[in-house]
Amino acid sequence: MGVVIPLDKGRNQAASLAPLMALVADDMDGVNELIMQRVVSNVELIPELARHLIDSGGKRIRPMLTIAAAQMCGYEGKHHIKLASSVEFMHTATLLHDDVVDESDMRRGNKTARILWGNEASVLVGDFLLGQAFKMMVETGSLDCLAVLSDAAAVIAEGEVMQLAAAQHITTTEDAYLAVIKAKTAALFAAAAHVGGIISDQSSEKRSALDSYGRNLGLVFQLIDDALDYSGDADAMGKSVGDDFREGKITLPVVLTYRRGNDDERKFWKRALEDGDQRDGDLEHAISLMKQHNALEDTISRAHHYGAIACDALEIFPACPQKTALMEVVRFCVSRSF
Amino acid sequence: MGVVIPLDKGRNQAASLAPLMALVADDMDGVNELIMQRVVSNVELIPELARHLIDSGGKRIRPMLTIAAAQMCGYEGKHHIKLASSVEFMHTATLLHDDVVDESDMRRGNKTARILWGNEASVLVGDFLLGQAFKMMVETGSLDCLAVLSDAAAVIAEGEVMQLAAAQHITTTEDAYLAVIKAKTAALFAAAAHVGGIISDQSSEKRSALDSYGRNLGLVFQLIDDALDYSGDADAMGKSVGDDFREGKITLPVVLTYRRGNDDERKFWKRALEDGDQRDGDLEHAISLMKQHNALEDTISRAHHYGAIACDALEIFPACPQKTALMEVVRFCVSRSF
Repeated sequence: MGVVIPLDKGRNQAASLAPLMALVADDMDGVNELIMQRVVSNVELIPELARHLIDSGGKRIRPMLTIAAAQMCGYEGKHHIKLASSVEFMHTATLLHDDVVDESDMRRGNKTARILWGNEASVLVGDFLLGQAFKMMVETGSLDCLAVLSDAAAVIAEGEVMQLAAAQHITTTEDAYLAVIKAKTAALFAAAAHVGGIISDQSSEKRSALDSYGRNLGLVFQLIDDALDYSGDADAMGKSVGDDFREGKITLPVVLTYRRGNDDERKFWKRALEDGDQRDGDLEHAISLMKQHNALEDTISRAHHYGAIACDALEIFPACPQKTALMEVVRFCVSRSF
Repeated sequence: MGVVIPLDKGRNQAASLAPLMALVADDMDGVNELIMQRVVSNVELIPELARHLIDSGGKRIRPMLTIAAAQMCGYEGKHHIKLASSVEFMHTATLLHDDVVDESDMRRGNKTARILWGNEASVLVGDFLLGQAFKMMVETGSLDCLAVLSDAAAVIAEGEVMQLAAAQHITTTEDAYLAVIKAKTAALFAAAAHVGGIISDQSSEKRSALDSYGRNLGLVFQLIDDALDYSGDADAMGKSVGDDFREGKITLPVVLTYRRGNDDERKFWKRALEDGDQRDGDLEHAISLMKQHNALEDTISRAHHYGAIACDALEIFPACPQKTALMEVVRFCVSRSF
């Protein structure tokens, strides 16, 4: 029960995104405006489809990281707006392609673009947004930012293929799973924060600190997402409990429960997730096994660990409202689990 | 029969890719080596799938344009190798995504990657290659090249969506069709030649000339491809006659034949391509209508027009073996139709 203390700590301080959102509000207006400008195309389907996704209630946490990092570093130019918009476009492109790959029907409580406009359009509009993202990066004139973001683009895709190819086995280790989410989720969080430091011309020490903050926050974000899928409130999440289970995704709660289980339990996991043979009551049984083996608490406990690393990474920056807010984001992400 | 003269002219000189290939051979060895280095990944599926496509016998005409353009401009560095490899990766990524969008089973006489490894892997490995392409561009340090190639990436995707959304109507005009192929095919040819001039630090006049050469060559290439699909030799093409027809693609031979036909003929085209209701003998009927209305000859005639523009664009460059070879590429592309 070593997780009780950090959980309570998170709860006591009632962490929220509000302080961050207040600090970045003006700049995020610029980001939202730029995003709307850059989805314009003579081909009507493009803005229509892109806006569906862009308007559908994401928190835009990634571009906020870029903005807050640049502010914390005292940046006074305008390029952080373009970088933040690029990051959001990269994220949106990934979502479009992910939904095709996962054959998902719903995202954040709405039908996915592939259901509304087809897989073809989702693939191609994703490609378009990626192209637009790179155009905006180029406009900043920062080759260092381009290097970080193009590397992230390749790593994200690599992570997705990794998940496709290897990580669908129920015997996946925690380390192998971590490698997947480091690539597919944490790499973009890392790049988002990192480029805020690059564009502000920070020392390599501070750039690395921002990269590390973002990367570990990304891990927190993904792990909590994994736990919520078996325990969350459907309305608050905009997705239903059990989506990952139904799609046969091997996430950390599953990895832990499988390893801690007996032979019968392992057979169950193999049948339901690896063989895809799911029956009535399987989800409930899965959740009860997770409870029995403390898998959700321990997934959250792992998230706390990465959250602590994220906060320590930021410590070298002088105190300022942005630093405080960025630290609170970590606590907010962990506290999403309640 | 106004096309007889240019066709014969093409034939007399027995145009081939050989002079170009000889000039760029050493540099293309570098390109091929770099390509193999950059598909390496810890995720085995990535090099496996990418190599399938890379090895499957494409002529690599796009990277050769970059190399030849740089050579013609007297470039002495090594960055043209990276740019040429980026162009080929962008092209490969597009093919992977195209096959998913078109649900194609065969490409160049081989099973498509999506048939061998699934749509999911094709989408994701395409994304990976695009990320690797941008990483290589960044390594050249040329923001101008990055601007041209990222713009091309967005325009290509836009062209594909355009084709998906609007151009599937049998009533499409020649102009609308031209807009599609300008975007989806010619933009990358233009960028491939253009960046050869940028990296060689040429005047904007010469850069524009290379862009224009590539763009018009791209149109030639696509139009001849369209004609070959109804008249070509399956072995030489690596695809079967009638693929476009079976996939319901509205290409220029169809646009011309439809417009020149009577009401009954138009009903046939609408049924077979727009409604997708294809019956035995339809392909043969389509080809006989095309012959009757001279649609294939006139498609080739249009290609000659763009080919002439491509060659005139190059005229401002001083005489050199690369200039001669690049002009011969145009005649080679036109003469593919025999």
